[in-house]
Amino acid sequence: MGSAASQHRPDTAAAVVAMVGAGQLAQMTQQAAIALGVQLRVLAQLPDEPAVLAGADHRLGSPDDLQALLALADGADVVTFDHEQIDPGLLVELERAGVNLQPAPAAKLLAQDKLHARRELERMGFPVPPFTHAHSVEQVQAFAQQHGWPLVAKTPRGGYDGRGVFELADPEQAAAELATHPDGLLLEPLLEIRRELAAMVARSTTGEQVAYPVVESVQRDAMCREILAPAPIDAELAQQAAQMALQIAQRAGITGVVALELFDTPAGLLVNELALRPHNSGHYTIEGCVTSQFEQHLRGVLGWPLGATELTAPAVVMVNVVGAADGSDPLRRIPQALAVAGAHVHLYAKTARPGRKLGHVTVCGADLQGARATALRAARELGSEP
Amino acid sequence: MGSAASQHRPDTAAAVVAMVGAGQLAQMTQQAAIALGVQLRVLAQLPDEPAVLAGADHRLGSPDDLQALLALADGADVVTFDHEQIDPGLLVELERAGVNLQPAPAAKLLAQDKLHARRELERMGFPVPPFTHAHSVEQVQAFAQQHGWPLVAKTPRGGYDGRGVFELADPEQAAAELATHPDGLLLEPLLEIRRELAAMVARSTTGEQVAYPVVESVQRDAMCREILAPAPIDAELAQQAAQMALQIAQRAGITGVVALELFDTPAGLLVNELALRPHNSGHYTIEGCVTSQFEQHLRGVLGWPLGATELTAPAVVMVNVVGAADGSDPLRRIPQALAVAGAHVHLYAKTARPGRKLGHVTVCGADLQGARATALRAARELGSEP
Repeated sequence: MGSAASQHRPDTAAAVVAMVGAGQLAQMTQQAAIALGVQLRVLAQLPDEPAVLAGADHRLGSPDDLQALLALADGADVVTFDHEQIDPGLLVELERAGVNLQPAPAAKLLAQDKLHARRELERMGFPVPPFTHAHSVEQVQAFAQQHGWPLVAKTPRGGYDGRGVFELADPEQAAAELATHPDGLLLEPLLEIRRELAAMVARSTTGEQVAYPVVESVQRDAMCREILAPAPIDAELAQQAAQMALQIAQRAGITGVVALELFDTPAGLLVNELALRPHNSGHYTIEGCVTSQFEQHLRGVLGWPLGATELTAPAVVMVNVVGAADGSDPLRRIPQALAVAGAHVHLYAKTARPGRKLGHVTVCGADLQGARATALRAARELGSEP
Repeated sequence: MGSAASQHRPDTAAAVVAMVGAGQLAQMTQQAAIALGVQLRVLAQLPDEPAVLAGADHRLGSPDDLQALLALADGADVVTFDHEQIDPGLLVELERAGVNLQPAPAAKLLAQDKLHARRELERMGFPVPPFTHAHSVEQVQAFAQQHGWPLVAKTPRGGYDGRGVFELADPEQAAAELATHPDGLLLEPLLEIRRELAAMVARSTTGEQVAYPVVESVQRDAMCREILAPAPIDAELAQQAAQMALQIAQRAGITGVVALELFDTPAGLLVNELALRPHNSGHYTIEGCVTSQFEQHLRGVLGWPLGATELTAPAVVMVNVVGAADGSDPLRRIPQALAVAGAHVHLYAKTARPGRKLGHVTVCGADLQGARATALRAARELGSEP
């Protein structure tokens, strides 16, 4: 039977990478770690999380528990993250304790606190949507007078996949929401968005940087549902987005991969937010680029040379497999999906729940239209919510 | 800490595939299993074998122990193999006990017993080298009179990577070898071989079959050192090799992937031997084909639809990383290898020993010459024996 001791190889030269979190990002990082001879150790809250089921070494504990974080870090070459849900103060304490955190707490905060990110990016001169931090109905009304109702409100911390983002239709709704958000709300106008883009770059602790192709992120219900690579936009706009991501990574001292989410608006590109970890917009890189974002993140945080980022095909499309309303498990439908020629199926070993990301499908092809049709067909076969 | 119990998900629909063996083939199968939501369980002799370190569920035991094999099979949907070193009689006993073995023992024997394979293939009408089974010096001399010295001798069972294959220069050497091989020797002439080819096909338990591109296997010291995909041969010869592999798979009722090793000789193609499992000649498929041999093997033994086998690039070259004479560990040199753009590095987490296969490098490119140069450079950076 498996035992924890069996996964330790103190006598070898294997690098040990500790990751806070054990979800699908850590699961796919485990696949990359196997090939590189890297020992991945994850911090899981429960023993049935995806990366644990995938066989990563693990510690059980909460990311809110300093002792659990220290136990995770013990003997590891570096500590990194598969999510943002960790108290920034704890990260500073870990850093003080001598733990090698990549990215460093100050950089990570850009992904943890949307308000901080907006202010920092604006200060650095990058284009961001108009925003304010409102604590009172009067402040909301003043912002609405300038930009019109409805407004978009975001909780500065803790949101993801559309959670923590909602519209405010009028002052009454603003009052109700402010009552439940004592730390205030980040407000922005309801922007006219042509499309959402994601620009992923990687930076090694050595300072080396590489950029992936800029992709389009197709959203439904504020959740990324499809990625089109390369984004069907003109080369100049793509170049602009990639340059922005490279500059932010360099100036903020980011390490590992970073996904910059951008709005393509009539007023030009605006930076929405960023993730300092492998990201849904980069899942397509497993088959679609020479080096996957998961391998790239490991290289970056370990200070190893970065890998080539070119597409492996003219067009690559990823479609998320989202839990259907009937709660059916895509695991039971996998043979039907595998019958779709060219579909790369990835399941996350998560309990099926409506609206939950349970897996994804990637298709490499000659053009976006064909690849997208194939990927959508396979996702449907898996019972994905359309 | 990791625990065996944590890797069991009796409440889900996950398929459980048991594999006899826990080497690099099982390790890479684990990577494929993760994406498909398949639970891989391996039979390891030691807790530090590659697939165990990669996080596959495991049982400890010997493949020669019926009880260990039954424990491995308990609750699994199917039992398959990452090597041939298992008593064919035990497989028949497992089959009688109701275990779903894929491939079935009768088919697997074609990979386990070279003499049996030669006889069967000849009986089915496939071209094989001239051969005989010799128990006495007189029999060896009679064969040598027909074909000339030296002869090539093989132990019918148990050989791999050049072990169990040697030349006989004269009757004295024949007498000495026969004295240590009471079961006799498989003899064949020292053939004039233009190149060695490998034709991989997959067959599902449903009868569906697919063929991979035919590749050239570059050997040194009777060990596969490089794979060139596609093989630089004319299309007709490649077609002939692939058809042979498809016919053998069908007629022998093979399931999973099968690698047919062929000699390209002045007298035409001759079948050398076959492996009924993922094979060194198919490692390039991880990045080089739409569906890797490891995923394909899982699909085949589970009765799932097979995946597309097209190359992802015009040329793909794999180079084995072979332990150098100084015993140096490629793990310590991985950053240097990752600096070679386009090199996909795979390490097997095996203790470095001279002449041992410790990993491989794959490069996808525009032509074989360029891809090969890059792959050889990365293998050298890892300290591979040239």
